[in-house]
Amino acid sequence: MNFQRYQALISAELETLNKNKEPQNLYEPIRYILEIGGKRIRPVLCLMAAELYASTPEVALKQAAAVEVFHNFTLMHDDIMDKANLRRGKATVHQKWNEPIAILAGDVMLVQAFQYLLDTSFANPKLLFDIFSKVSIEICEGQQMDMDFEERSDVQLAEYLEMIKLKTAVLLGVSLQLGALVGGASTQDAEKLYEFGINTGLAFQIKDDLLDAFGDPKNVGKKVGGDILANKKTYLWLAAYNNADTDKKEVLNEQLANQDADSKLAKTLALFQELGAKEQAEKAIETYYKKSMDNLGALSLSEAESKPLKQMAAFLLGRTH
Amino acid sequence: MNFQRYQALISAELETLNKNKEPQNLYEPIRYILEIGGKRIRPVLCLMAAELYASTPEVALKQAAAVEVFHNFTLMHDDIMDKANLRRGKATVHQKWNEPIAILAGDVMLVQAFQYLLDTSFANPKLLFDIFSKVSIEICEGQQMDMDFEERSDVQLAEYLEMIKLKTAVLLGVSLQLGALVGGASTQDAEKLYEFGINTGLAFQIKDDLLDAFGDPKNVGKKVGGDILANKKTYLWLAAYNNADTDKKEVLNEQLANQDADSKLAKTLALFQELGAKEQAEKAIETYYKKSMDNLGALSLSEAESKPLKQMAAFLLGRTH
Repeated sequence: MNFQRYQALISAELETLNKNKEPQNLYEPIRYILEIGGKRIRPVLCLMAAELYASTPEVALKQAAAVEVFHNFTLMHDDIMDKANLRRGKATVHQKWNEPIAILAGDVMLVQAFQYLLDTSFANPKLLFDIFSKVSIEICEGQQMDMDFEERSDVQLAEYLEMIKLKTAVLLGVSLQLGALVGGASTQDAEKLYEFGINTGLAFQIKDDLLDAFGDPKNVGKKVGGDILANKKTYLWLAAYNNADTDKKEVLNEQLANQDADSKLAKTLALFQELGAKEQAEKAIETYYKKSMDNLGALSLSEAESKPLKQMAAFLLGRTH
Repeated sequence: MNFQRYQALISAELETLNKNKEPQNLYEPIRYILEIGGKRIRPVLCLMAAELYASTPEVALKQAAAVEVFHNFTLMHDDIMDKANLRRGKATVHQKWNEPIAILAGDVMLVQAFQYLLDTSFANPKLLFDIFSKVSIEICEGQQMDMDFEERSDVQLAEYLEMIKLKTAVLLGVSLQLGALVGGASTQDAEKLYEFGINTGLAFQIKDDLLDAFGDPKNVGKKVGGDILANKKTYLWLAAYNNADTDKKEVLNEQLANQDADSKLAKTLALFQELGAKEQAEKAIETYYKKSMDNLGALSLSEAESKPLKQMAAFLLGRTH
């Protein structure tokens, strides 16, 4: 797959943004967060989708940059909201500079994302704007739901799925949709790719919850059990709670107040297993993965054409087959 | 002038925004800040400019809403940055709710401003987007300059003028420009109205600095001398410092550390007078006001047509003639 070539295209494009701009205190944090990088999943998806329909992925390079700049805007603002000190092993912007700068630099990035989006010779730029502005707001709604859930004890699994759809999956979906449209796809094909992104995103997020609880520390790259220790209402926790009878619900709730980390981890993990939450999560991942493959199957793509997207889905879900 | 009719149109439009939307914690703060209102100067300017060229101001109602929503987005985020507790006599959003909500609701408003902007049958929406996105970023740059100035002791008067141009004047200018364009003005006419807005905005901001120091408490509606007590580098302070010799510069700097409010006020005001800063500010206001009238004069408007804009400028500058 052309993953690395796509990544290189995007990094080169983003390096041209905000060069030598003033005031420095506003533009340096933007260059900083864009340089720490990450895997560039969203813009790569955008270019992949464009290449399905256009002779070259570069036709969607500005839109790819748009989704990456937007994604990093959400990280910059979310890190303030979550009081996070580190992002990809480096100091977050509000830590390295300060909160006002992180707010303002994020605001500029949001506008720049739209500037990138509409830097196009595509015949119907208003369509791109309508799609992307809708999703931008949905992503904020997802973040608000996530914050609201922290204060609630009655979150339902369906609400959780809606939240992760808005907070995570729609940006994957729209990255594909925009790339496809600019590449020349029909609106129907572009929507199927959006659906593929949604289902992959949902599977990815549940997998993330699963790995945090049951992953191999060697492979996960972060401390296992962090969600449990932070009392996060993940897919696993909500599924377990949903499946529990009154007694077991009480035991789950007791663990939220357990101050002994080792015991809290061990007991909660045992409950996730016992109450079928682990199995349920694995099944949900499989279901969304199958749906995503069905979405691809509904497009008239050759094996060679659909291969990069299948590889990307496999990569996101840590599948070895 | 149709000021009140314009205000009513805008308030009615803004009341339809975000009705019954979820999550409530995201949309209630937006309704709240838009309801506390203010004078709606910017959208009124937008409608006034539209009516110069179109048969009805309503053609630019969505763009008028765009500049007002945008303006309130900047207030919501600036209030966090400035740690302000009150806005128009009411609790600020981050005080009434919390900072994460104020950040996120502001983000949504920024996107909604662009949605309003592009909700138009105007033939060249990309032009509206290019103009407004450029100004959006300039306004953030102005806010950053303002924050940077607080940390600096060597701010020049020219830099201050650039800062207030970006932070305040360009939004007045662009409100007029967008309304004119959507109303059917030539790009040249729309640019002249933009210039009128810039010059009015600069005069307005310097007048604001002047009133804070020398205004009649009965008319100003807030405590006089607040800028001096807060050590703000206003037009007056920078002009005084610029005009001062080494000794007087030292006296001005000493006042920054003066803990006795009455003495600090009295001595600084005396220096503003003595060093010609008050007179210089009055002249600058007059110069920008004259420029703004020249901008209007360059348009082929009848007396009746230019009257509302002249009244608005007079209103902003507190002129009775």
